Amino acid sequence: MDSFGVALLGCGTVGNAVARLLLEESDRLAGQAGRRIELRHILTRNPSRVRPFQPPAALLTTDWQRILADPQVGAVIELTGGEQPPLDWLRTALMAGKDIITANKALLARHGETLFALAREQGRVIAFEASVAGGIPLIRSLTQGLAANQVESIKAILNGTSNFILTQMTEKHWSYEQALAEAQAKGLAEADPSLDVNGTDTAQKLAILARLAFGALIADQDIECRGIAGMDQTDLLFASEMGCVIKLLAEAWLSEGRLALHVEPTLIRRHEPLAEVRGPFNAVEIVGDVVGHTFFYGLGAGALPTASAVLSDLIDLVQGGAKYHFLHASWVRPAQRLPRRTAHEIESRFYLRLNVLEKTGVLAEVDGILAHHGVGIASVVQHEEREQSRVPLVIMTHNANLGSFRQAVRQLCDLPCVADEPTYYPIAD
Amino acid sequence: MDSFGVALLGCGTVGNAVARLLLEESDRLAGQAGRRIELRHILTRNPSRVRPFQPPAALLTTDWQRILADPQVGAVIELTGGEQPPLDWLRTALMAGKDIITANKALLARHGETLFALAREQGRVIAFEASVAGGIPLIRSLTQGLAANQVESIKAILNGTSNFILTQMTEKHWSYEQALAEAQAKGLAEADPSLDVNGTDTAQKLAILARLAFGALIADQDIECRGIAGMDQTDLLFASEMGCVIKLLAEAWLSEGRLALHVEPTLIRRHEPLAEVRGPFNAVEIVGDVVGHTFFYGLGAGALPTASAVLSDLIDLVQGGAKYHFLHASWVRPAQRLPRRTAHEIESRFYLRLNVLEKTGVLAEVDGILAHHGVGIASVVQHEEREQSRVPLVIMTHNANLGSFRQAVRQLCDLPCVADEPTYYPIAD
Repeated sequence: MDSFGVALLGCGTVGNAVARLLLEESDRLAGQAGRRIELRHILTRNPSRVRPFQPPAALLTTDWQRILADPQVGAVIELTGGEQPPLDWLRTALMAGKDIITANKALLARHGETLFALAREQGRVIAFEASVAGGIPLIRSLTQGLAANQVESIKAILNGTSNFILTQMTEKHWSYEQALAEAQAKGLAEADPSLDVNGTDTAQKLAILARLAFGALIADQDIECRGIAGMDQTDLLFASEMGCVIKLLAEAWLSEGRLALHVEPTLIRRHEPLAEVRGPFNAVEIVGDVVGHTFFYGLGAGALPTASAVLSDLIDLVQGGAKYHFLHASWVRPAQRLPRRTAHEIESRFYLRLNVLEKTGVLAEVDGILAHHGVGIASVVQHEEREQSRVPLVIMTHNANLGSFRQAVRQLCDLPCVADEPTYYPIAD
Repeated sequence: MDSFGVALLGCGTVGNAVARLLLEESDRLAGQAGRRIELRHILTRNPSRVRPFQPPAALLTTDWQRILADPQVGAVIELTGGEQPPLDWLRTALMAGKDIITANKALLARHGETLFALAREQGRVIAFEASVAGGIPLIRSLTQGLAANQVESIKAILNGTSNFILTQMTEKHWSYEQALAEAQAKGLAEADPSLDVNGTDTAQKLAILARLAFGALIADQDIECRGIAGMDQTDLLFASEMGCVIKLLAEAWLSEGRLALHVEPTLIRRHEPLAEVRGPFNAVEIVGDVVGHTFFYGLGAGALPTASAVLSDLIDLVQGGAKYHFLHASWVRPAQRLPRRTAHEIESRFYLRLNVLEKTGVLAEVDGILAHHGVGIASVVQHEEREQSRVPLVIMTHNANLGSFRQAVRQLCDLPCVADEPTYYPIAD
């Protein structure tokens, strides 16, 4: 049988690892795929750059048209990231009858519908296991392994950079800035880490999961989203005192036909599986109506875990199975515009930190406002503070309505005894 | 498009749940599979038995030949368990051109090679996601999601009954007998629980995983195996004192081309993901050379988690993808008779409990024998015991050679100060 030709778009961290494995582990891959896989081109802006793995110079090209015109290229593997030019490359590749493997969550979250419609029209596959939680075979688990289930909820840690930073802050009592610098030094955060730490990356991944799990058509920009940028270490210490850790949690759940979803730093009780996810790991908890609770854990980012997902897609594509999971089984089913839950339809417990000026009657004032909005206090911590006139007052609430809770917080801001903007995070069940 | 006809073999706990879902959730399943699925027969020994879900009487039959002769039956779903008659049913079904879905790990562990060879000959599929850890899409994760990896090791909790019993013993300080009775009362253990608690069920599942992950052809009877039957609560208390829990762990790892595998109660440090697996849950930790650490968690047994796996296989079969995962991708690859590691090639830390007679010099004698076999002591616990003449002496060793450690234990048995048979378990890294 002829070999199966592929082209790699991008030769950054992940692309470089994929190139190395395609060339160095070609026997293993041929054994798994049942056919030899030939890397024919690597598209890169800078062919002369020195790389950790140096691919043969003849493979490197800056010319997309040359790849597009090569009839031996059966699939392109897109690992550049960003919306353009990848969108144009993938469109033209599909039109030229080539299959696609991509790790580009931004592209899928924003242009997935049009790309998948085009793939269906052309009878081609877009495989995207690597786009969410690379080291976890999550896309297959959702679309195949749990196919008999109505998914009820997803709770996930999807950004390795943020989780690494929060782990350092929690365990080493570092400031946000120190932990971010460490992540950058370790190659776990980019020079501009904003998409990771402001929650955008997590929201894009959640949009993809919500599409697969609920058929929900949601732009990542429409997901309520707070990241961990500038998080105050004080809150991690108080959370710890209360038996919790704080994680950047993506949540989506369906209830009475209405969908709620958000990305937020969230308190999780220690010993819960999600609380134990440390460093650059990702984890996903999925509840299905038939299967019950499931939990998946693995490295979420980095060259090798992502390469593992890319190559498993490639093996699947060469074997012939990929068209069943990726073309028939998931994205291309008609999407629904599911009604969304409003803040007044969401219940949660909350962690609330107020910096208050020490004077008598503060607690009564605060409790009065919370009670007025139907928010009950479950526990309070305020430590004696001899040096300063303003002290943190930390409250864990009982289950409360998100909308009412926010109104209460706004009203608390107006109290003369409340010094700064209050900080609050939900507490996971 | 015509509907896809299936027959169910067995209408016990799992079969009954599958029948109910096939009939009550037929719209959902048709939506996922792209084609209606018609349950045409249910093979049962006792059609008149009253069941939690009562299928239409016309579906129930005791006549396998009637099912075999029905050309509308595209697949049979085997949920009876045991080796015979299922082996004959599945053979004849394959010969008649029907695909197979099975949860029968004993059958696969013992007759998998012949059954899969026959399936290949006939161009049919044997789908078996439900055979190991039903609530975890583990078979697909191994054969597809991690396809680009050389698996390096598997550590797994695969028997929900044993894990439930150990959890009760640990958390409620119950005896083995009390915990087993509770498992039986909850329907988590059969009237004869031997295959669960003596480790056989776990060994059969490990044989299947080892075949998929390493291509290793191993009879479950050839896997060194100890179960939890009759476990002494004393050891759970000492383990806890030492920051560990005891789990019935299945392990397989490949090192220098040689495979080691065993099923044994094993000490795991608290906070390790596997240590936190409680009650009837299963969990699997897989390390791949590309992906690194992964961890999967879900309900291992019970009607609904197993039904979820069975129906995901069925959806996959009807969509057309199953032949790629189950026919081309896994079992049917040539098996290897991998060389096995001997006890003298396996290193581990050990937990060792001796009941010793209180007299001077005991520790010196014990340490002398251990040291003679190259086994170093990492920690010792012996509590003051006023009432009894024999007291437990608990030792955690440094890394030691399994073969030498066993020789040391045999020699310890001969010491006059050692009262009963020593108890020992490995400690997971």
